[in-house]
Amino acid sequence: MISLADVYHVVEATVPLYVVMIIAYISVKWWKLFTPDQCAGINKFVAKYSIPLLSFQVISTNNPYKMNLKLILADLLQKLIAFLVLTAVTKVSSRGDLNWIITGISLSTLPNTLILGLPLLTAMYGDEAAVLLSQIIVLQSLIWYNLLLFLFELSATKGAAPVTPALEAPETEIPQQAQTKEEEEVKVEVARIRTARKTKTMLILLTVGKNFIRNPNTHATSIGLIWASIHYKWGITMPEIVEQSIIIISNGGIGMAMFSLGLFMASRVSIIACGKRMAVVAMGMKFLMGPALMALSSTAVGLRGKVFREAIVQAALPQGIVPFVFAKEYDINPDILSTG
Amino acid sequence: MISLADVYHVVEATVPLYVVMIIAYISVKWWKLFTPDQCAGINKFVAKYSIPLLSFQVISTNNPYKMNLKLILADLLQKLIAFLVLTAVTKVSSRGDLNWIITGISLSTLPNTLILGLPLLTAMYGDEAAVLLSQIIVLQSLIWYNLLLFLFELSATKGAAPVTPALEAPETEIPQQAQTKEEEEVKVEVARIRTARKTKTMLILLTVGKNFIRNPNTHATSIGLIWASIHYKWGITMPEIVEQSIIIISNGGIGMAMFSLGLFMASRVSIIACGKRMAVVAMGMKFLMGPALMALSSTAVGLRGKVFREAIVQAALPQGIVPFVFAKEYDINPDILSTG
Repeated sequence: MISLADVYHVVEATVPLYVVMIIAYISVKWWKLFTPDQCAGINKFVAKYSIPLLSFQVISTNNPYKMNLKLILADLLQKLIAFLVLTAVTKVSSRGDLNWIITGISLSTLPNTLILGLPLLTAMYGDEAAVLLSQIIVLQSLIWYNLLLFLFELSATKGAAPVTPALEAPETEIPQQAQTKEEEEVKVEVARIRTARKTKTMLILLTVGKNFIRNPNTHATSIGLIWASIHYKWGITMPEIVEQSIIIISNGGIGMAMFSLGLFMASRVSIIACGKRMAVVAMGMKFLMGPALMALSSTAVGLRGKVFREAIVQAALPQGIVPFVFAKEYDINPDILSTG
Repeated sequence: MISLADVYHVVEATVPLYVVMIIAYISVKWWKLFTPDQCAGINKFVAKYSIPLLSFQVISTNNPYKMNLKLILADLLQKLIAFLVLTAVTKVSSRGDLNWIITGISLSTLPNTLILGLPLLTAMYGDEAAVLLSQIIVLQSLIWYNLLLFLFELSATKGAAPVTPALEAPETEIPQQAQTKEEEEVKVEVARIRTARKTKTMLILLTVGKNFIRNPNTHATSIGLIWASIHYKWGITMPEIVEQSIIIISNGGIGMAMFSLGLFMASRVSIIACGKRMAVVAMGMKFLMGPALMALSSTAVGLRGKVFREAIVQAALPQGIVPFVFAKEYDINPDILSTG
């Protein structure tokens, strides 16, 4: 299926990325070149400029009128099943919360399609595979990364303003105190609490929405889609100056993202920062659960042949870098993602 | 001489650079996105990784066996005259010191050939101009930037360990105290002081040499030259993996350097950070002294026609980014360079 030359081609495309990561790791771990705050500066540059502009480039150069609908459906279904499974598991397990759902979704359904996927699938299945894969990349950047950002914001806002136990408790106590006058008082109290809780939920959603809208990635992806819709409908091309201004930063984006990953790994005591047991769980989610879910949903929507195989191979790729960069920014289990 | 299309071509190549710079400026000045220490992290990345790898790329892809000797000679002569003139001026003027010589050389003889020069000269004189210009770029990266780094190191080391007045004073007092026994004592003292001063000079040079060798740019340029000599002699090509590992970082180099320039400008109170009078002096050095010196030395070595004009046009380009990045790293008049 794959020749030795193909393997070399893939190695050629992926090794340089890890070289950059290792250089960043050594810079901090051995040479002490960057202080933690200086690392934060580089990471911020990656999260606020490199990644959004890279996303914009991917989305704006993909023809939104020529998407493989079955592939989109399979992709959608995979994420939905992953979300349901993870929610169910976290409800049962004692440790589970929103953060674990986010991390699980990242691991099982958001592989590194852009950097590792494109050279690998081109080597395995030829150039049409690249076209299909870039549709998955577009979906990732456009829908899933934004949804992920939304969840990250939700978790961060909830973390900053936890629901107080006082607001949670009364509801379960009501049936036991069913006496005439007390009943009235309780009802009023319940109504008050419900309003307070609603206001709280509204406030959280408002904060999340505000921060979400402030995130440059949201803008970059939506403008990218708008531009692609215009470009592929009316054939209008972007002025060279605008395009070059974007390319000049996005060009270095992949390298900067890998550098940022290396900086992070160096900031932890051990390379397997989350411990061996958790690393095994993460690997399982990444390399077993991910492809299995994709196989399930691809079968369900009726994907067949080459496209079916391509869909599963891309689902088995290592963890994507963007979810990791976000996880680091919000400090939600980045150590687990770094092992995937 | 230049058509409107050529002008647009130049604008197209240069405006994006300044867009990146302005984004960096706004990020700090308006959005307060980066703290000073975080900016320092990004600047360090540019100085230690982006610029050296960019230099390596330029040098390693230039054929060292096919250089225009007259152009090299003119370039050499221009720098030599600039050095002599600047040394003479600083000896006469009260404010002059090593730092001013360094800044003067940067302004008058190190224009932005790589980023602004290549598109401009190609538009004006065609593709052969690009070949000539890349020879000047190679000389800049290989000789002048390293010499500049050496001078920066010298200035920094001297600044850290100034020659104490106690060691300077006695020498001028000796002739007045010419008595037999005292004379002996004085002679011994003078010898002691001379030895001490020699040791001090040796120590300074040793420190400079050590730091100079530690600088990644030194390695990048020398390895670049060695590789180019091998490649263009025996036709050996670099393994794709090594080349890609370098390109993945150097690709973003120009953008990162411009971003770093913008961060610096935002860190100052005014855009013309050195004051208006000094800005005028800097402009004079850059846009009058630089081309004038090049005209003088080109005539002296017998450059004629197109090459002569190209040599002078490139000398009139704005200040290069690399000397500025170095100046910022060593904190020696970066505010003056940022106006050139």
